[in-house]
Amino acid sequence: MSRQPENLREGKSYRSAEFGTPAQWSEFVMNHPGLGPVPGKTFLGKVLGLTGMEVSFGSLAPGRSIPFLHAHRQNEELYVVLAGQGEMQVDGEVFPLSPGSAVRIAPAGERCWRATGTEPLAYLVVQAQAGSLGQATAADGMIPDRPVVW
Amino acid sequence: MSRQPENLREGKSYRSAEFGTPAQWSEFVMNHPGLGPVPGKTFLGKVLGLTGMEVSFGSLAPGRSIPFLHAHRQNEELYVVLAGQGEMQVDGEVFPLSPGSAVRIAPAGERCWRATGTEPLAYLVVQAQAGSLGQATAADGMIPDRPVVW
Repeated sequence: MSRQPENLREGKSYRSAEFGTPAQWSEFVMNHPGLGPVPGKTFLGKVLGLTGMEVSFGSLAPGRSIPFLHAHRQNEELYVVLAGQGEMQVDGEVFPLSPGSAVRIAPAGERCWRATGTEPLAYLVVQAQAGSLGQATAADGMIPDRPVVW
Repeated sequence: MSRQPENLREGKSYRSAEFGTPAQWSEFVMNHPGLGPVPGKTFLGKVLGLTGMEVSFGSLAPGRSIPFLHAHRQNEELYVVLAGQGEMQVDGEVFPLSPGSAVRIAPAGERCWRATGTEPLAYLVVQAQAGSLGQATAADGMIPDRPVVW
């Protein structure tokens, strides 16, 4: 039985849910149409109604590798490691992963990763269409003319 | 003196860097053109060459609130909380934040957050253009016809 996101909330402009700490992400099981049940993986897009990105939380057991290389057609990916130790390879080049590692991979990069430590490798992955960001932060933000009230 | 990303690596299809654990993100200082130095904030986009998203790591000291509401023109945002306790408000509706909270906010949502616990509230924020994701995951992925070699 897979862990499920909890405490779903929805307002006019937001949706939120609780996914648990990275140490708990091993309890998720994704049902993949081709691969069957995949332990330690859950996607946020459908739950939260994401429209500009897809995001997943992953947890890989010690000693395990993702069993295949993959690349993308349109999407860049960002990996952020939150717990554990590991290695990533991109186009055959291997480098270490630890908490706070952040890796941007272009669509064509052929990538794989594995958990090399004694605890699970926990990480999140963001996909977004390469080249799609028009503007961000100060250029995209607006500050309404009223104070914050708590 | 701000913490800096370390161990920058770059290959044909990737860039990576080490940003430290969420507990270390309070050591970052962002130089904002209008606000001056902002402690506990760093952006990843320029360091990693992101083109479809902007991502930041944030750390808010106990008892502190972001001092203003903000909204966006084009971008949806995803907040993922990694440490500490807090509250978020969107369009005046307040709800709790704890490690594993994930919140998607549409561009127009007027948002603010604060740290309500005894340790810093650490979180990451992803911006991507609302509606820009064409396809993802199995539809966007490609698996090359060769095995993983470590």
